[in-house]
Amino acid sequence: MIVGVLGDGQLARMLALAGHPLGLQFIVLSPVPNSCAASVAEQICARFDDEAALRLIAQRADVVTWEFENVPARAVQYLSQHVPVLPPPAALAASQDRLSEKRLFRDLDIPTAAFAPVESLTDLETAAATIGWPAVLKMRMHGYDGKGQATLRRSEDLRPAWAALGGVPAIVEALVPFEREVSVIAVRARNGDMAFYPLVTNTHRDGILRVSISGQNDPLQAQANEYARRLLERLDYVGILALELFAVQGELLANEFAPRVHNSGHWTIEGAETSQFENHLRAILGFPLGSTAAIGHSAMVNLIGDVPDPGQMLSVPGVHLHLYGKERRPGRKLGHVTLREMGQPGLHASLQRLLALLPSAEAT
Amino acid sequence: MIVGVLGDGQLARMLALAGHPLGLQFIVLSPVPNSCAASVAEQICARFDDEAALRLIAQRADVVTWEFENVPARAVQYLSQHVPVLPPPAALAASQDRLSEKRLFRDLDIPTAAFAPVESLTDLETAAATIGWPAVLKMRMHGYDGKGQATLRRSEDLRPAWAALGGVPAIVEALVPFEREVSVIAVRARNGDMAFYPLVTNTHRDGILRVSISGQNDPLQAQANEYARRLLERLDYVGILALELFAVQGELLANEFAPRVHNSGHWTIEGAETSQFENHLRAILGFPLGSTAAIGHSAMVNLIGDVPDPGQMLSVPGVHLHLYGKERRPGRKLGHVTLREMGQPGLHASLQRLLALLPSAEAT
Repeated sequence: MIVGVLGDGQLARMLALAGHPLGLQFIVLSPVPNSCAASVAEQICARFDDEAALRLIAQRADVVTWEFENVPARAVQYLSQHVPVLPPPAALAASQDRLSEKRLFRDLDIPTAAFAPVESLTDLETAAATIGWPAVLKMRMHGYDGKGQATLRRSEDLRPAWAALGGVPAIVEALVPFEREVSVIAVRARNGDMAFYPLVTNTHRDGILRVSISGQNDPLQAQANEYARRLLERLDYVGILALELFAVQGELLANEFAPRVHNSGHWTIEGAETSQFENHLRAILGFPLGSTAAIGHSAMVNLIGDVPDPGQMLSVPGVHLHLYGKERRPGRKLGHVTLREMGQPGLHASLQRLLALLPSAEAT
Repeated sequence: MIVGVLGDGQLARMLALAGHPLGLQFIVLSPVPNSCAASVAEQICARFDDEAALRLIAQRADVVTWEFENVPARAVQYLSQHVPVLPPPAALAASQDRLSEKRLFRDLDIPTAAFAPVESLTDLETAAATIGWPAVLKMRMHGYDGKGQATLRRSEDLRPAWAALGGVPAIVEALVPFEREVSVIAVRARNGDMAFYPLVTNTHRDGILRVSISGQNDPLQAQANEYARRLLERLDYVGILALELFAVQGELLANEFAPRVHNSGHWTIEGAETSQFENHLRAILGFPLGSTAAIGHSAMVNLIGDVPDPGQMLSVPGVHLHLYGKERRPGRKLGHVTLREMGQPGLHASLQRLLALLPSAEAT
């Protein structure tokens, strides 16, 4: 069987690496030649709205999925008329617009920070007065890794923040004083079966995920699963979905969801019975889901902008190295390392050794 | 870095799948187009003794290895003048000839069944008289998966067995009444570090490996490790080596070794901290070795000649499916399944469920 993937970054690459053992072949569509997945998949190099390219994928693939949210909705709509596209395109549309995403959470009784839509500076001033300080202004569409965002700490911040966004539709949200950021990776099969990975605690810096630590018996797991379940069922979802949440005084507030495999789930390659990549493929192909149980204790560290000496990293006990074959560039995700240890003390010792090799992670 | 691989069956495919996360690229040489590794590696389709093809690999690869023993020794010799070739070509030569292999064992005080070289029917008659019945006649070169062998139960078997081999140089060995067949997968780094995977108990049928079960605290582990250590050090070996042994009355007799990743080590992909494929690559590239410790309890079942419904297999707890992308053909290894469970009862329950799906494995 052939799986089509829109986008060919590291997520497409890891989907393909997980899928070859299942006997699958991959076609990836991307406007950038020789990107991450090209060495493990056939690449069609074209724009996402190139109708000839979409037709080719529709003809050859048995199912089509995507690896990032900013795929044009109309490309997905076009494909879905000719080939099964999963997750359902409506889930992509809901996640592409921060306002519809937040309204979906509210509609499902999933708590969020206070928010308001913003279409003008006047809107922003009115909303900020209600929401209070600090707050954050975000583009409704096309933001990722902290791009298209501005923090608002006082009324003088409003005008420059609004100008910096260039007047596009936006949303303003209360910046909540969270204890930690967590995410739950959930999966739903074609037959409605669902499974949830152990809750992960995430550390971001400069808007980019740096470290994820997977927990066991997290007291917030059940609440996170319940919120993810509501999303999966409402969206008649098939595949992996990641729900990012803030833990605030023992309660969870939903921040955003990603209708795809997710950076905070990379630890599952070694740290869970079945990886998020394999379970995404199992789900969209109609196979039974694999167990999401943890194996030992795991942490994931992103390699941002630079890659330390592989030999040094591989000398750290429990290290599993994942390089994406990308050229170095400041702020770019070039790879990740998963640490898996059977005991928590071993995990923490290895994590300290690994972080010491990463200048960019010193503050984490 | 680029790794060249001679041969592109499933072992090359799994080497490439293990190597992409380390940031490696692969070039495989094979006379057969579109073989197993073609979807995850660049393929050069040429005979193994095609000098232009070998020159191309020598120019482009940083290191060259092989995935099966029957690579022409002179191809390896040629390559080793232009590019690092690991394991050392001498190890390949020793394993290609059953007589030199057995003499190496004897020289290292590694016990074997009684054996004698055979160059003529007269040799065979003399040897059989000394060794006794039953015995087995094997071609010295080019045998695999039980091919090129004949069992000898009485003197009337000698003439037809010798005729069937076509008069090629051979070896006759006592057929020992073993309790079980085991193998140890060992790895040696460029700096001399060594590591050994937990001992595996293997079940063959019709000369083909069917099931491998990885043990923990096997009483024969230390003895197997010691024999493997002698081989690794004598050969100044770098990479994965598999040593197959017979357990006879609590002692081990060496049967043969393979200077490469091995079918009885496939369980390590999920069942060990570091797979045999990754450790082979780490070794030949000069990286530190990864831990060979087991994760839970594992069994590996080969899919021979036919592949049951993937959905049914994936519904068995603990199943990890590995298909090689080959066309079906009787007796052909089309894939394997690893079962990994944290507890032994779970492993046995899953193994029974899995074997029930495989008509060809009913006798195992």
